[in-house]
Amino acid sequence: MSRAAERRERLRATAAERGLDAVLVTNLLNVRYLTGFTGSNGALLLRTDGADVFGTDGRYTTQAGTQVPDVELLVDRATVVGLAREAVRGGAGRIGYESHEVTVDGLGQLERVLVDAAAGGTAPELVSVRRAVEELRAVKDESEIEALRRACAVADRALAELAAEGALRPGRSELQVGRELDARMLALGAEAPSFETIVAAGANSAIPHHRPDGTELRGGDFLKLDFGATVDGYHSDMTRTLVLGSAADWQREVYALVAEAQAAGRAALAVGADVVAVDAASRDVVAAAGHGEHFPHGLGHGVGLEIHEAPGIGPLGAGTLAAGMAVTVEPGVYLPGHGGVRIEDTLVVTADAPELLTLTSKELLVL
Amino acid sequence: MSRAAERRERLRATAAERGLDAVLVTNLLNVRYLTGFTGSNGALLLRTDGADVFGTDGRYTTQAGTQVPDVELLVDRATVVGLAREAVRGGAGRIGYESHEVTVDGLGQLERVLVDAAAGGTAPELVSVRRAVEELRAVKDESEIEALRRACAVADRALAELAAEGALRPGRSELQVGRELDARMLALGAEAPSFETIVAAGANSAIPHHRPDGTELRGGDFLKLDFGATVDGYHSDMTRTLVLGSAADWQREVYALVAEAQAAGRAALAVGADVVAVDAASRDVVAAAGHGEHFPHGLGHGVGLEIHEAPGIGPLGAGTLAAGMAVTVEPGVYLPGHGGVRIEDTLVVTADAPELLTLTSKELLVL
Repeated sequence: MSRAAERRERLRATAAERGLDAVLVTNLLNVRYLTGFTGSNGALLLRTDGADVFGTDGRYTTQAGTQVPDVELLVDRATVVGLAREAVRGGAGRIGYESHEVTVDGLGQLERVLVDAAAGGTAPELVSVRRAVEELRAVKDESEIEALRRACAVADRALAELAAEGALRPGRSELQVGRELDARMLALGAEAPSFETIVAAGANSAIPHHRPDGTELRGGDFLKLDFGATVDGYHSDMTRTLVLGSAADWQREVYALVAEAQAAGRAALAVGADVVAVDAASRDVVAAAGHGEHFPHGLGHGVGLEIHEAPGIGPLGAGTLAAGMAVTVEPGVYLPGHGGVRIEDTLVVTADAPELLTLTSKELLVL
Repeated sequence: MSRAAERRERLRATAAERGLDAVLVTNLLNVRYLTGFTGSNGALLLRTDGADVFGTDGRYTTQAGTQVPDVELLVDRATVVGLAREAVRGGAGRIGYESHEVTVDGLGQLERVLVDAAAGGTAPELVSVRRAVEELRAVKDESEIEALRRACAVADRALAELAAEGALRPGRSELQVGRELDARMLALGAEAPSFETIVAAGANSAIPHHRPDGTELRGGDFLKLDFGATVDGYHSDMTRTLVLGSAADWQREVYALVAEAQAAGRAALAVGADVVAVDAASRDVVAAAGHGEHFPHGLGHGVGLEIHEAPGIGPLGAGTLAAGMAVTVEPGVYLPGHGGVRIEDTLVVTADAPELLTLTSKELLVL
């Protein structure tokens, strides 16, 4: 059984538990997860009786045959409408749908199609399945972890090459560095950067999500780099903060504090750990040093087919960690007007110590 | 008055015509269009009385101050909820929302917030505004056209440089060429490719939307390149098909046919022209040559903050062209198993001849 087929069986069990005859999966990443399809239009009608149908349009007939060989194919320009009609033909009474994904207009259209297809009979009921597929996606299988390893390796190597070539030096602009990091990741096999690369020099490093601009790198300044690579659809995420020239005492102090907090967060990643407690393990280190107010965001988040996905690890999170969850640990301390430090890794929760995927050193690098 | 403020006045007039007190704009590109804000979380409460409020979260306080200096700012983690409460405080009775954008869950949350905020009084009514902002966006102003010119120029130059350097030669793979095109566009100042770059060699060129793979370029084969650059958020879109080595007669014939059809499509771009007629002007050339069935897609589409936006130019389209619309003209003829040709430009409709933004030659290039 393929990985995708195993995932469909897990969703089928959930659907049966909820008394559904079928689930109409329309979130494209969820469709990819459940079928392997990577095109830009596709949907899955998953049925509890096992007779699933994958829908796409004529552009993707060949690709669907290759990527989704084990599911019946429906080629229809109006893909979701076609699958809804198919569900009615199959006699479905209760159809699950993704209410966090389907728009108000989309639901209206679906309801009309079901009534039409029922042709005077009772139209099926539409029932939200909430984030059932996203919940499955939070725990990665080995093929997903391998894609994440490769994505993290691309980012590691891109940074190492740029540093070795002297690309991170005073006088260059944030934008130049960001574009070179992006181009290097592409050259190393990334499909795309995981998100808009953050390069923040000097006082800009105190802005948690600074967008790179023409600011020049200067000796003695912090340089914060937050970036990642997408490989086979999976996103890596890493932040490193370094100093150009020589580091001042205050910089070494802030850096050491964040590094300690980050290590505490990593150490707290364990099967069954509550996400609020994991966040607190790291945050308490920062707070004890009097910098609680300078750490204004959560500790981390899941990564996978999306750069931000379940589980969220923060003071407002809920739930516990499970083996196979891929998450970031990224505390930061930001001193407005001066500079900030964030250190972020991507890791996988295991029954033992977490597996570290981003391998770039976390010693304070002085270039 | 800033460009963004002018656009808000146009939406305000539409809202007033529809008897709305306010419009809650949540589509992020629509928000960018109406405010200039480029962050990843923002929404606009536009009020017919002129007291607009822009909402975002704490990550973007500084950026919002810079990019949206002329609109009152609300910083709230629950941005849309905060704006909805603000609308109730302002006494709004009818609030427009984007039903093609708001999810079923999102609407449910909005309704609950409005009832809560009304505190026992009558909660405001939510009314869909459909694609009111997208309709405004279809007609570009001078600043948008200038961004499109720059985006097209980046794509033109990237291709010219790669061709001049001999990067498009037999033995190289589609993936290599695609990644180099992407990297070159980034190096030339693009924020990102406009979409996943299509590089299709030999028989793959007969697949309208082929995804680049390890297929090697070979002498005597077609090479189809469909790509674009994003600059200041605006997307260029261009397709060129060339031949490596020397062109066979059948290749010259197909190319000449598509070039003629493309010229006919461009010539039909005029203020007031019906989009179905524009499509037909080009499609008729292909059909008259007996290749109607080998041109399975529409003639073109609008481009701007999205790579595909209004107006659609195809047999199933509706509406007429207006001055300032930026559109593609991209007929193709695809001969399965042999090869295909598509020629695509991005142009702006004007009172005179359309302005051509993609300047790369459309002579059959034999490299």
